[in-house]
Amino acid sequence: MSKGLPKRSENYPEWYNELVKRAGLAENSAVRGCMVIKPYGFAIWEKMQRALDDMFKATGHQNAYFPLFVPRSFLEKEEEHAEGFAKECAVVTHYRLKADPSGKGLMVDPDSKLEEELIVRPTSETVIWNAYKNWIQSWRDLPILINQWANVVRWEMRTRIFLRTTEFLWQEGHTAHATEQEAVAETEQMLGVYADFAENWMAMPVIQGVKTPSERFAGAVETYCIEALMQDGRALQAGTSHFLGQNFARSFDVKFVNKENQLEFAWATSWGVSTRLMGALIMAHSDDNGLVLPPKLAPIQVVIVPIYKTEEDLRKISERIDPIILELKALGITVKYDDDDKQRSGWKFAEYELKGVPVRLAVGMRDLENGTVEVARRDTLTKESRPIESVAEYIRGLLEEIQSNIYARAMEFREANTFTVDSWDEFKEQIEKGGFISAHWDGTAETEAKIKEETKATIRCVPLNSIEEAGKCVYSGKESAKRVIFARAY
Amino acid sequence: MSKGLPKRSENYPEWYNELVKRAGLAENSAVRGCMVIKPYGFAIWEKMQRALDDMFKATGHQNAYFPLFVPRSFLEKEEEHAEGFAKECAVVTHYRLKADPSGKGLMVDPDSKLEEELIVRPTSETVIWNAYKNWIQSWRDLPILINQWANVVRWEMRTRIFLRTTEFLWQEGHTAHATEQEAVAETEQMLGVYADFAENWMAMPVIQGVKTPSERFAGAVETYCIEALMQDGRALQAGTSHFLGQNFARSFDVKFVNKENQLEFAWATSWGVSTRLMGALIMAHSDDNGLVLPPKLAPIQVVIVPIYKTEEDLRKISERIDPIILELKALGITVKYDDDDKQRSGWKFAEYELKGVPVRLAVGMRDLENGTVEVARRDTLTKESRPIESVAEYIRGLLEEIQSNIYARAMEFREANTFTVDSWDEFKEQIEKGGFISAHWDGTAETEAKIKEETKATIRCVPLNSIEEAGKCVYSGKESAKRVIFARAY
Repeated sequence: MSKGLPKRSENYPEWYNELVKRAGLAENSAVRGCMVIKPYGFAIWEKMQRALDDMFKATGHQNAYFPLFVPRSFLEKEEEHAEGFAKECAVVTHYRLKADPSGKGLMVDPDSKLEEELIVRPTSETVIWNAYKNWIQSWRDLPILINQWANVVRWEMRTRIFLRTTEFLWQEGHTAHATEQEAVAETEQMLGVYADFAENWMAMPVIQGVKTPSERFAGAVETYCIEALMQDGRALQAGTSHFLGQNFARSFDVKFVNKENQLEFAWATSWGVSTRLMGALIMAHSDDNGLVLPPKLAPIQVVIVPIYKTEEDLRKISERIDPIILELKALGITVKYDDDDKQRSGWKFAEYELKGVPVRLAVGMRDLENGTVEVARRDTLTKESRPIESVAEYIRGLLEEIQSNIYARAMEFREANTFTVDSWDEFKEQIEKGGFISAHWDGTAETEAKIKEETKATIRCVPLNSIEEAGKCVYSGKESAKRVIFARAY
Repeated sequence: MSKGLPKRSENYPEWYNELVKRAGLAENSAVRGCMVIKPYGFAIWEKMQRALDDMFKATGHQNAYFPLFVPRSFLEKEEEHAEGFAKECAVVTHYRLKADPSGKGLMVDPDSKLEEELIVRPTSETVIWNAYKNWIQSWRDLPILINQWANVVRWEMRTRIFLRTTEFLWQEGHTAHATEQEAVAETEQMLGVYADFAENWMAMPVIQGVKTPSERFAGAVETYCIEALMQDGRALQAGTSHFLGQNFARSFDVKFVNKENQLEFAWATSWGVSTRLMGALIMAHSDDNGLVLPPKLAPIQVVIVPIYKTEEDLRKISERIDPIILELKALGITVKYDDDDKQRSGWKFAEYELKGVPVRLAVGMRDLENGTVEVARRDTLTKESRPIESVAEYIRGLLEEIQSNIYARAMEFREANTFTVDSWDEFKEQIEKGGFISAHWDGTAETEAKIKEETKATIRCVPLNSIEEAGKCVYSGKESAKRVIFARAY
């Protein structure tokens, strides 16, 4: 099955597309730019959702659900926000079809035209702040800490499965606070949650930072982000957390009586990650044989393949394996026993490699005699023979090791592909080779735009941990106080 | 807080609306017919989702996700289906807004008109069968057992929160099978899952049956349903499972090579329950004091309220209660300790009654001295004093008892409100009083329509367990072989 997967080194985009398809993760649908997330892909997304949802709840958030439709007049209320989203909106203008009188089929019923158009939400700040208006009167009503899991639509012209699709799934947190300080702390806390998830679940190291003004979310005062490096040397923005100041409160007139008994606009944050993370997960770790999944997000953590010729052999193997399966399950490990006789074991090995199952056990008649089992690791593609009786406990440790190893490998890759650059010539040369470039920037939008124009590189972020260091802008030569991270990005 | 909740006996619809609002379950949004599901309401829905999702997975189903948009031409393909949904469609016709040149604000950009309109899915048979076409070639590819959790939109003219909203949340199962028999078995299995969920989680007895042809899902060969009785004597359809025959396979040309090596259209089912279940849950059990929730679906199963005057008292109570909380949590019970000093205990008691928390514990200084705790049941509104040291174990049993009691009460109500009726005069009299009417029907759509016209009663279903019994149609006097269930319905 994995035969013919294009090599990363030869055609990275084609490798990605084929891998998404062959591993059964997703496919393009008949609707322009919209994808079908297939069961195996969705199972990974469900694991991501569960982990994130638990983290949101552990930090005091509750889920809720707000309407899919945004009235046009809502979108207009926050000017920058409107400008940012107006050009990519799916617009509902009618509410009925009727039989086409000129022949077969259906047509839009012109009598069902809406007085005010409805936008399919590209994000929900406006709808949610319109609701919060009625929920917030006093500082006692604050903070409001709400998250929503939802689908959103942005009419993208160039789409790419998981990475940029017209419809995507995401979560959007929307919080309201009594003070600026508290809202900023929330924004930073949620960035930390995202970084924690990326590193400890996805095994993907990220740089935490803030966006430059030109890359900010439309309507935000400050946009924080986590940035990851993919294997082709391009950056991927994996999550954002926005401090919205009082912008939306002002647009929707959300005032509260503060502790000093004065009317004040509420302070807001919003933060989100999406099915784009699926793309990041695939591109961060997978290889020319297929997916490599971190054990914590793998729908199947261990697959066991019996190698047999006769029914009687299979019976004997199953008898020995059944208690191992129970032991693995008792350890909280997801295991699949594949005794399907329609496929040969060689086919199965390739298939589970393609699907990124972290550990594969194979057991044949000789193993039974020797009391052994063959343990294969997906991350290193190595195999070893282990005593069967203690194999469950061994696998528990092995899964942890694989999780760490995948992270360490990605970290090593990132370190080898992060370059400190101090001259424009070096910058132009390095950007062609890919990777993160740490360089001085004079802080102006003009320079940022020119660098982008000349090299397609954008400022991914101003890292939170960047050190004050006097230097000269790599492009303009003007004074700079700290380095920022440049890259070509998805 | 619960002061002023209208009484069910005086104004049932108003009682329902006020309860939904005051218990913090949901509210109407600024978008016509669309609701905001608030955190407490959403927490109940999440519990429903988790339980159902586990049941779907236990019966071999996997989740996936299909696009929100249905191209107009897809909807046209299955004629009955198109007819059934065309009149209530939100239609996307454009994909961009622009600044209104005549002044302020945004307008639809006429240059962004879509070649083919997109319908916001009212249900996903068409989109899914269009995808299945590429997934199904051979009997080896079958069955496909997929479920999707999603939002859908039906442009309803008269909406009612949770019960009938323009946008609602639901799950829709869509399966494909190699034989008719297997598809029918799946349809019936999923009806059984719904009945199991309704009865064992929602504590709501249901009648399982099939719809008459005039009440079938648009495009189905047979629609199975579960029907529940609300406290005002009206019926509520709580879930449906459809045997779709080969209708959608034919419309989307989904053929497979069967075991006999012949091309055949695939057999289909679809089945769904929605946030309508929230309305059913509320109306099945709640009383004039507020919500009554079955423990299995209560976001908070036990609330503990300390009764104290001084900080020192509170410290002593908390010290004694902390280990009880740990014990309860260890038993898998969700517990909230409400030591908020901004509210008085009387206010708290009313609030948790309104919110339907199944068990309330109150502990004061005298309780500490006596080693007791006051245990109050939400379902019976009774209180008793219990020894504090064994209270956790006692509560575990009590929650089970409450779950059973709520079910038994609803069952008793349904039995007392199900009437066997054999004359038309009696039918007309009884239907005014509400309840299920079991009566003979001649099997014609004409009679069904006339009964509906004259009494607003519809045939809720032909029960699966109905006994063959010769009789005369209650309306026409013609021959009938079995009784069906009539009621006025939500």
